[in-house]
Amino acid sequence: MVSFIVVSHTATCDPHFSLNDLCGGAGRVDLLARAIQASLCVSHGIRQDVVCYLVFCSDPRGRIIRFSGSDLRRFNPDERSTAALIKKALAIPAGSLFREASPGVSIRVGGLSELLAMEGEKRHVAILDEHGSDIRACDDLCCNLYVLSDHQNFSEQEMQVLAEYEPVYLSLGPTVLHADHAIVLLHNERDRWMHG
Amino acid sequence: MVSFIVVSHTATCDPHFSLNDLCGGAGRVDLLARAIQASLCVSHGIRQDVVCYLVFCSDPRGRIIRFSGSDLRRFNPDERSTAALIKKALAIPAGSLFREASPGVSIRVGGLSELLAMEGEKRHVAILDEHGSDIRACDDLCCNLYVLSDHQNFSEQEMQVLAEYEPVYLSLGPTVLHADHAIVLLHNERDRWMHG
Repeated sequence: MVSFIVVSHTATCDPHFSLNDLCGGAGRVDLLARAIQASLCVSHGIRQDVVCYLVFCSDPRGRIIRFSGSDLRRFNPDERSTAALIKKALAIPAGSLFREASPGVSIRVGGLSELLAMEGEKRHVAILDEHGSDIRACDDLCCNLYVLSDHQNFSEQEMQVLAEYEPVYLSLGPTVLHADHAIVLLHNERDRWMHG
Repeated sequence: MVSFIVVSHTATCDPHFSLNDLCGGAGRVDLLARAIQASLCVSHGIRQDVVCYLVFCSDPRGRIIRFSGSDLRRFNPDERSTAALIKKALAIPAGSLFREASPGVSIRVGGLSELLAMEGEKRHVAILDEHGSDIRACDDLCCNLYVLSDHQNFSEQEMQVLAEYEPVYLSLGPTVLHADHAIVLLHNERDRWMHG
């Protein structure tokens, strides 16, 4: 089981955003949709052993949306239909426990701190950093919780929260990439590692 | 300079497709939009030295749309705006020479055969094949023209056309991926190679 957490600093928590303006009015929900695709989709299938969390920071209470590969049904890899699942999740009343909005998609109130308190304890946490250790030079890939930021860097507060989990800092190569492309590279490294 | 060719067997050549139905009525234009993003986009920028060609086979005359990284202006990485550029290109009258539809985006009539006659001669061609040589085991990455198929395999006729250019068969790892994710891995391998 591997999990990805993608922290969005700009995506709206208001479910009334337009599916025709994911890049603008919705605050870069397009980026989150692509991160979900990269986490979960392979050719003609879904990665069953993956969970991808989206953390929405634009609202003080925060929201966490969870996509679970093993529970998704009729999932298409395009941005619009993925954004529609996000919209549907944001529309249901959210409390402090996850509540299912559609098969495999759940939502709760909270931020990175609450999510890591729930998920980070028994996991090996990694964050991406262009100055980190080259992932190909790592002896093994024991990390199973990867935390990524959107088009903005992690805030100082977020870095402090992450530091409590003693994360590994990983670099994926010489070029700084979008979060979804970084997830593709992480999966490839893990796929190779798991297949010896 | 590196080029990617993505062959679509299903995407419509009719510019009247709906931007709200890229996955369905447009015949998987969503997949082409993501391939463009993966070819051209890095964090906060565009790869200047990349050209991505889309080949549309759904019409007997065929269409080739060219996205040139060095000439694109105001390019967003989301599917909808990329699909809008494809739509705009399909709407202009196309002949046997490339004609610009918007900055960095051109269109002509033709198929894989015509495109390779134009592009393949002096290039080192590679195609992806799960049974091919592992890209990490290759001595160098001299290939500079990568040909990928959409969600369908290359037809027998396409394979015959490709064979004339003596392509290298490359594998990217143990998992079969979408075309856009394959392009991300190809770029990473080339980025690492170029940076020694």
